[in-house]
Amino acid sequence: MEAAWAAERAGRSIVHLEVGEPDFPTPVPVVEAATKAIADGRVRYTSSLGIPELREAISGYYAERFGIDVPARRVVVTTGASGALLLALAATVDRDDAVLLADPGYPCNRNLIRLCEGVPVGLPVGADTDYQLTAGLVADRWSERTRGVVLASPSNPTGTLVAPKELAAIATEVDQRGGVCFVDEIYGELVYDREPATVLASPGLLDDGTPFVINSFSKTFAMTGWRLGWMVCPDWALPAVQALAQNAFISPPAPAQYGGVAAFTPEVWAVVEERRRAFAARRDVLVQGLQASGFGVPVLPQGAFYVYARSDGLDADSMRLARRLLDEAGVAAVPGCDFGDHEPEAHLRFSYTTALDQITEGVRRLTAWRPSA
Amino acid sequence: MEAAWAAERAGRSIVHLEVGEPDFPTPVPVVEAATKAIADGRVRYTSSLGIPELREAISGYYAERFGIDVPARRVVVTTGASGALLLALAATVDRDDAVLLADPGYPCNRNLIRLCEGVPVGLPVGADTDYQLTAGLVADRWSERTRGVVLASPSNPTGTLVAPKELAAIATEVDQRGGVCFVDEIYGELVYDREPATVLASPGLLDDGTPFVINSFSKTFAMTGWRLGWMVCPDWALPAVQALAQNAFISPPAPAQYGGVAAFTPEVWAVVEERRRAFAARRDVLVQGLQASGFGVPVLPQGAFYVYARSDGLDADSMRLARRLLDEAGVAAVPGCDFGDHEPEAHLRFSYTTALDQITEGVRRLTAWRPSA
Repeated sequence: MEAAWAAERAGRSIVHLEVGEPDFPTPVPVVEAATKAIADGRVRYTSSLGIPELREAISGYYAERFGIDVPARRVVVTTGASGALLLALAATVDRDDAVLLADPGYPCNRNLIRLCEGVPVGLPVGADTDYQLTAGLVADRWSERTRGVVLASPSNPTGTLVAPKELAAIATEVDQRGGVCFVDEIYGELVYDREPATVLASPGLLDDGTPFVINSFSKTFAMTGWRLGWMVCPDWALPAVQALAQNAFISPPAPAQYGGVAAFTPEVWAVVEERRRAFAARRDVLVQGLQASGFGVPVLPQGAFYVYARSDGLDADSMRLARRLLDEAGVAAVPGCDFGDHEPEAHLRFSYTTALDQITEGVRRLTAWRPSA
Repeated sequence: MEAAWAAERAGRSIVHLEVGEPDFPTPVPVVEAATKAIADGRVRYTSSLGIPELREAISGYYAERFGIDVPARRVVVTTGASGALLLALAATVDRDDAVLLADPGYPCNRNLIRLCEGVPVGLPVGADTDYQLTAGLVADRWSERTRGVVLASPSNPTGTLVAPKELAAIATEVDQRGGVCFVDEIYGELVYDREPATVLASPGLLDDGTPFVINSFSKTFAMTGWRLGWMVCPDWALPAVQALAQNAFISPPAPAQYGGVAAFTPEVWAVVEERRRAFAARRDVLVQGLQASGFGVPVLPQGAFYVYARSDGLDADSMRLARRLLDEAGVAAVPGCDFGDHEPEAHLRFSYTTALDQITEGVRRLTAWRPSA
């Protein structure tokens, strides 16, 4: 990203397929609600678990969208999804506890486990399991030291999902072993060819209250810089999570919270739906273009806004390839080394967080480019 | 606080001397700058260390206010002072490392040390040392396992300061032992009978770059709910702090950052100065009133907006006393047990974060109240 910006500042034309946040603006009703709260002086500390009206609104989201009853009591508003995962891990992971996650995966998740003195254990995953964990993999790698599993569906960087049945099977497997599931659903509303889903709708999982479900306003509502997320927290963990939230964050940002209340409205959902369609169209162009340019996309990504493409047909070293694509084709992408230890040199992550005409131009450049060596 | 709110909702008149945040609104220029940023769509992720213009503005604050050169490179913008202390501790404290702090003190500091798997070691302090640590105390209690010292000047709950000479002596003592100082200056601009100071102005401390200096927009600029703080970070710790900031926070809230740039202006400083005078006048009324009501205030608090009063002349159990004052006199205060293990039963914390007429009324009620037993 730094290299892409530097090239642009130097006057070159760069197609940005490296950016990990939506290019859309925050929906107007959210902006208006936040602005009104600021004008009204509602910018003081809030309850550490979030303002009651936002917790209620999130509870209402689960009722309306998925037909499930998530009591507001169990909804913890956080400083972004990062804050949610940090609280969940700090409340449950003791020193040297192992936590399983998919490799490749979002790098911050591994590092937050380390911050809590736990040991992240990346399980190599590939196209055969849609780049996701399975109940079988979890069972195979479970040990005495294992405390839990972090799942992300859809995943960054792969854009792939865990099928609802498999997700429920993993959660049940973990539950039976006395472990904890952390399910990252921050891209859950950005899915294509299917309806949004939540692990909480799987039979038994909501009542047992075992998974921590992490979510965010950042991607769904294009609110990255506001720093607002949430977590559905098992009842047994609420006291620890609240104590940690008070100490580490005091409260989530107030302007973002008052804005967030306005996100769960039909007007904003219509905006989200429009953007979802735009993302789907971009994905199709990008995936086809990558395949035509010599990249491998063995599994069609069905969510988020990423394609994790096999690149070793073009260059055995994805870091070098990323640099060459930037320098020679004017296309920015992220090398696999950002996402784990499993074949990072053979993959690049491409994002579709830029306008369709930019993606079309990026694909044109990739197709025209040929390795010079 | 919960009990005070409940009493008020039940129709009783309560004087709030328990609240730990300023009653003043965020200054207008800050509100306008944040609102404009939101309207302009500047609500995306920022650099994890903060927007360059805010880091420059904070660097300028040290130059203008204290005549010292703190390069913007060393200024890390954070999600509140809590976020700053969390980053500083996580970057330096290993598991089982001991960290010294004054008891009584701000409870979150102890808990953040625990979150980083360190061991908080509270040193009992009293009126003889202005309820603060000294270089002698630090030297006496330093052990092989000690990693550093957290200082807060002014302190919550005592409102007392560490004299600049003593602060420099502590920092030098810690430095010579290869330890780290974390200096909380979040109330540094709210001092009375004297000019604001920073430990960074002590000879040698800025160049050596050993202390982490934590600060915040919350108290100085009445921006609690915005969640914006900063840290002056030693050069050697910057890479670790940046990595931690990226993983745990991604970036501080964007609206707060753009608002914060407008805080360091003559117009806002004039507002801060006016409020500082108001706090000083309130303090005088409260301290005199507490003394007239049988509380002990052996050291005049010279900063923040707290009085940590000896209450054992009225009741040997401060928790019971707080409840009785609320129920019988309609005055809310915080019992000492929130702040440590050193004589908590003999102290109450009173805040002067409410209007002067409220404080006058609170004092009237306290003076009129007599223990019924």
